[in-house]
Amino acid sequence: MNTKNGPQKTPIREWGKQSLIDRLSARFTLRNPSTVQGPGDDASVACFSESLTVSAQKLSLEGIDFDLSYFPLKFVGYKTAVHAMGQVMAMNAHPMQLLVCAGVSQRFYVEDLDELFLGIEAAAHTYGADIAFLDIQSSYTGLTLAVTASGDCDAGLLTRRSGARDTDLICLSGNVGAAYMGLQLLEREKRVFTGEAKKDELPNLEGYEYILERYLKPELPKALLDNLKADDVIPTSMCLLTNGLSDGILRIAKASGTGAKVFVNKIPIARQCYEFAETEKNVSPLVAALNGGDDFQMLFTLPLSLYDTLAKEYSLDMIGHICDASVGCRLITPDGRSFPLESPGFENF
Amino acid sequence: MNTKNGPQKTPIREWGKQSLIDRLSARFTLRNPSTVQGPGDDASVACFSESLTVSAQKLSLEGIDFDLSYFPLKFVGYKTAVHAMGQVMAMNAHPMQLLVCAGVSQRFYVEDLDELFLGIEAAAHTYGADIAFLDIQSSYTGLTLAVTASGDCDAGLLTRRSGARDTDLICLSGNVGAAYMGLQLLEREKRVFTGEAKKDELPNLEGYEYILERYLKPELPKALLDNLKADDVIPTSMCLLTNGLSDGILRIAKASGTGAKVFVNKIPIARQCYEFAETEKNVSPLVAALNGGDDFQMLFTLPLSLYDTLAKEYSLDMIGHICDASVGCRLITPDGRSFPLESPGFENF
Repeated sequence: MNTKNGPQKTPIREWGKQSLIDRLSARFTLRNPSTVQGPGDDASVACFSESLTVSAQKLSLEGIDFDLSYFPLKFVGYKTAVHAMGQVMAMNAHPMQLLVCAGVSQRFYVEDLDELFLGIEAAAHTYGADIAFLDIQSSYTGLTLAVTASGDCDAGLLTRRSGARDTDLICLSGNVGAAYMGLQLLEREKRVFTGEAKKDELPNLEGYEYILERYLKPELPKALLDNLKADDVIPTSMCLLTNGLSDGILRIAKASGTGAKVFVNKIPIARQCYEFAETEKNVSPLVAALNGGDDFQMLFTLPLSLYDTLAKEYSLDMIGHICDASVGCRLITPDGRSFPLESPGFENF
Repeated sequence: MNTKNGPQKTPIREWGKQSLIDRLSARFTLRNPSTVQGPGDDASVACFSESLTVSAQKLSLEGIDFDLSYFPLKFVGYKTAVHAMGQVMAMNAHPMQLLVCAGVSQRFYVEDLDELFLGIEAAAHTYGADIAFLDIQSSYTGLTLAVTASGDCDAGLLTRRSGARDTDLICLSGNVGAAYMGLQLLEREKRVFTGEAKKDELPNLEGYEYILERYLKPELPKALLDNLKADDVIPTSMCLLTNGLSDGILRIAKASGTGAKVFVNKIPIARQCYEFAETEKNVSPLVAALNGGDDFQMLFTLPLSLYDTLAKEYSLDMIGHICDASVGCRLITPDGRSFPLESPGFENF
């Protein structure tokens, strides 16, 4: 954006919409044979060999999903694409095509759009998808990015949220809460930068690379999902964690008509999460893990009979088990006390 | 929105995001057997019998795509969904699933969301699609709506922009320019309402129902496309007109590597277009037709050999023909003069 001392930038109004789309499209590689028609027509066209088409859409809005004062445009593109692809992967499908629409206001330059799409293309590259549709338009205020991801899936492999059964193990692809702590750190640094900081808040990002990366440039547990699929281990239910662990558990339990027990001391939390919490007394690592959001981990369930195999063969965390709906969704502490899991209801509204 | 004298409305923050999604989802009917999974999971799932999946996305932004001071929310939903479905239909595919994300600021109420989705569902009903994915989030400013439409298509029926050949007839599904005139009328009425009107601009919508409807609640030429398909008449190229006739002609010619000749006196323009132009001296019906936009007509090409059949059997307009690229894209007046077709380059930027 308006970086006054940076290199000369090109106002978007000096380019036609179609020239912009052509410029950006020319930089993408189409890597999937299933992408029959990429950007440049009314719609994208895919030819899927499997029987089911799985699609999800993510809308990212400036000021809500990202704050451009500390969120680089490249990462906005990367994270939005990862979010849409993660939702497709949460059905056990493989994202193959991305449809992208961006709305940009006059404060953005052609080079800013380049950065944004560099991030989208990087995410597409990482997870093997193609940008198959691209549209750009103007907006009055700020940046809006909509990404739809699509892919195909064999009917027998589809994992819905609704398939969890009593006694199923509740598994996590990795630690939770880190992204939320990364966001807290960035908000603190922003206060330092704008002079609103309290006296003892000094700029310090060192040692917090992991939580920053989990917030700014999250990755999906594709290797784990691929390994499970290769071994014919099909989760009974699965859900991408974007609104915190509690929310994910409640969604799966509700869709499956079950309850769930989650053991506090089994929830994986990264070391940097604890370390940051020590300097920021008002954020508890457990609250970050349960209600923080933006984790981009997979929450899934598998039959109890697989316990030994899972423990030996895969890098995942087993944090509890599904139980009868009458039990509800409960958090169990090491001393045996039990609390109801709660979802933050309003989520920014 | 804030209609102070209207019935009591419910602030969105009093509802959780999931409750809102559940409320809206409960009102939709899933009508396609191909919709395997509707709203309520990480992604939508479709099972297509044909070999190609065709998808397109439309992002609508307040202040750019619609002005809520005269654009009812229901129509915002309707038109955005129609736009996305029209892009899918422009590849000769049938839209079957819609993915919808809405971003709403605090000035909107639960009942406003109801209206918005009533419109989306009405469009889905009209064209036989399902709302298969639904997400709501908050926004800082205004209303943002992203709709993706998907459908399937037999490979042999797919129509790209790139298939037009020398001597092909250029056809239009109906008149152009009406939507643009409707917009001019609404903008005039807004000036009257806000007191910015010139003396001679008095509020008058009567007699202009058609141009208003073309702008606010456009329909797609589905019957014509279905008839052509039923008769095995496959356009050599096709394009949804959203940025004016000139833009559509230029897109098809560029993608096909051809030129085009369009005859001024063959361009269909509605009677109300001319009538409105008489009261608004600064808008020419021809300029509205060529560069106005929002027409939602199909522009397509067919072999010259079909001329007699097309003239007899279908309700369409033949406005010119494809020619060699060396000729360029030209507009021919009744007295034989010729002008280059030009596209409005910046389109709102």
